[in-house]
Amino acid sequence: MLVKKYVDMLQQKSVIRTLSEFATARGKEIGYENVFDYSLGNPSVAVPEEFNETCITLLREMEPMQLHGYSQSLGIPEVRQKVAESLNRRFSMNYKADHIFMASGAAGALSHAFRLVAQEGDEIITFAPFFPEYNPYVNLTGAQLKVVPPRTEDFQINFEAFEEMITEKTKAVLVNTPNNPSGIVYSEETLKKLAKILEEKSKEYGDTIYLISDEPYREIIFDQQKAPYVSHYYDHTISCYSFSKSLSIPGERIGYVAVNPSCKDAEKMIVMCGQISRGIGHNCPASLIQLAVAENLDRTADLGVYETNMNLLYDELKSLGFTCVRPGGTFYIFPKALEEDAAAFCDKALKYDLILVPADSFGCPGYFRMAYCIDTDKVKRSLPALRKFVETEYPNR
Amino acid sequence: MLVKKYVDMLQQKSVIRTLSEFATARGKEIGYENVFDYSLGNPSVAVPEEFNETCITLLREMEPMQLHGYSQSLGIPEVRQKVAESLNRRFSMNYKADHIFMASGAAGALSHAFRLVAQEGDEIITFAPFFPEYNPYVNLTGAQLKVVPPRTEDFQINFEAFEEMITEKTKAVLVNTPNNPSGIVYSEETLKKLAKILEEKSKEYGDTIYLISDEPYREIIFDQQKAPYVSHYYDHTISCYSFSKSLSIPGERIGYVAVNPSCKDAEKMIVMCGQISRGIGHNCPASLIQLAVAENLDRTADLGVYETNMNLLYDELKSLGFTCVRPGGTFYIFPKALEEDAAAFCDKALKYDLILVPADSFGCPGYFRMAYCIDTDKVKRSLPALRKFVETEYPNR
Repeated sequence: MLVKKYVDMLQQKSVIRTLSEFATARGKEIGYENVFDYSLGNPSVAVPEEFNETCITLLREMEPMQLHGYSQSLGIPEVRQKVAESLNRRFSMNYKADHIFMASGAAGALSHAFRLVAQEGDEIITFAPFFPEYNPYVNLTGAQLKVVPPRTEDFQINFEAFEEMITEKTKAVLVNTPNNPSGIVYSEETLKKLAKILEEKSKEYGDTIYLISDEPYREIIFDQQKAPYVSHYYDHTISCYSFSKSLSIPGERIGYVAVNPSCKDAEKMIVMCGQISRGIGHNCPASLIQLAVAENLDRTADLGVYETNMNLLYDELKSLGFTCVRPGGTFYIFPKALEEDAAAFCDKALKYDLILVPADSFGCPGYFRMAYCIDTDKVKRSLPALRKFVETEYPNR
Repeated sequence: MLVKKYVDMLQQKSVIRTLSEFATARGKEIGYENVFDYSLGNPSVAVPEEFNETCITLLREMEPMQLHGYSQSLGIPEVRQKVAESLNRRFSMNYKADHIFMASGAAGALSHAFRLVAQEGDEIITFAPFFPEYNPYVNLTGAQLKVVPPRTEDFQINFEAFEEMITEKTKAVLVNTPNNPSGIVYSEETLKKLAKILEEKSKEYGDTIYLISDEPYREIIFDQQKAPYVSHYYDHTISCYSFSKSLSIPGERIGYVAVNPSCKDAEKMIVMCGQISRGIGHNCPASLIQLAVAENLDRTADLGVYETNMNLLYDELKSLGFTCVRPGGTFYIFPKALEEDAAAFCDKALKYDLILVPADSFGCPGYFRMAYCIDTDKVKRSLPALRKFVETEYPNR
């Protein structure tokens, strides 16, 4: 007999997946270039050429067993060292190699972070709007994901609701800034206030509440700002990173866990990651990819296109009368739908070949997400369709 | 508070790891070339050059977002198709792409196989001698690993003991042939008898008992034989493969799950693997590595050195009077120690710079493992040390 909990999951269909499949099917009818597909958060810019060149140099010059041989389960020591140095250089931290665990992308990193601090019966709190995959990520550890309702005026944290939800069962709080789906960057003020509450509650309950920071969009920041580095504000922070977006290599599945050196037992937590891996069958990223990333840590793909796209969309949405908070980063924008039922709204948009994602599963009903990691040309061509959609379907808004 | 079950695991030190660290330390004193390190099962031959060339061609010629972009969580469809075709060609099977799930090495493949069919309260049976990592692999799913004692005369299956251990709780049987640590290949007769019992017991209990076949050594076979393909003998077989040994690319972490097309719900099981991945944070192998492997499926590294080494060691061990079954494949040999306590035996060997692994943790006390994935020159140089060790320490054997 097959294990029921996984069989049951086959029934649940992701709305993003469904819409993306619709877009692909529609593309076969009218040409995909004519489908304004804002459904998927897939990077649309090329990897930096230097990354490919590094791979080729490694393949040509490195001794084969050194290049392709078994790496340590925590990651290649030199790679971990270089990751630590890059983080220290860019975010004024003091990581050592011992604080870094190489993971196969953000899912791999988070799966270790959750298991470090939470198990059956425990709770992890996150904030709406949130990436819906957090549900299986957390709930299949045996712990439970609790979602704080959104603060829709600016998508910072709804602290009042948060303080009501935090209990002795809360072992960790999960943040994602810059945020998927809102595109919002948590302010210093937000992070300081969050840290203060976590310190107080940890003291009150006599048990550390950890902060797990999922930050794959850390490098996609607009207006020449810099996103506050979450770990700066709270010692007990476990940062989870993926190179998918910054280097545009999502298929290569590489990221890491970085534990704040001031966190109690920080080095032990990294060694524990290796034990967690044994249980879940995680393997550290491919050696070739680890070594190539290590030579390109301070580099990114040409991410400017996302800001260009954001500005085009934001201006058009505002001019059409949408309620919309201006994103500070990522490649998402998160406006309020023009009717209460965002699913109905997005359904009507399909007639105009606009693929928008209703945000019910993101914990924020009445809103929708646009992932603008697409060609700027297509964004431009989508604007008249957006206008036509709004003016035809909502003439009296 | 950190999760206790993983903290506790930090106390348990693997004997293989301890010995390997000893070998490294001793190597720093006398030169590693003078340490006869038979501790680790790491491939010692180079990847086929064609593999590296395929990587370089992909990096030079493929469109970057196609090469490095998100792949489907079950693996790249064309890669799965090619894996199916290669298996069909070589083992007369009838797999389709829908029966293949790309995994990050054998640990990744097994972690999915176990979760498909077993959970909390269930049991999985395997046969001694066995790879000790099966313990955390199985036990951390919540199911329990049960080990059938060895049949030491030939290291085929001890069916009498097996039939006593199989119960309604048994959801799967795990085999590893060619076997780590014995080097033995299960005969057709063994596999047919095993299948017969599984069919009868499945019928008796009214529930399928699955056969999980861990076969990373499938391609390392001696005497120009071919290892029987396990899935041929039993419909409900889940084959788990890794390219680590056949292509000598263990660091690249790539393998797959192949479900026998005649298994009930075979296609559904593969889709379930994608759901299991969400829970354990597994990511399919790096795109570049998937695409490169797909072009080299019928190729292997030059594996002949392992047979050369085996013959040298086997002849010497026999001439020294060891009880030893001749390996049919892998790069392991598994003699009986010259005293009851194999740990004491291996400890004495250290004085001769011979690093041998006692087999207590393999479920076979009194035996030891030699991993001869090392240079043939070193094997030759180790023979006098082996002779001196035996003649000095066991003069009256």
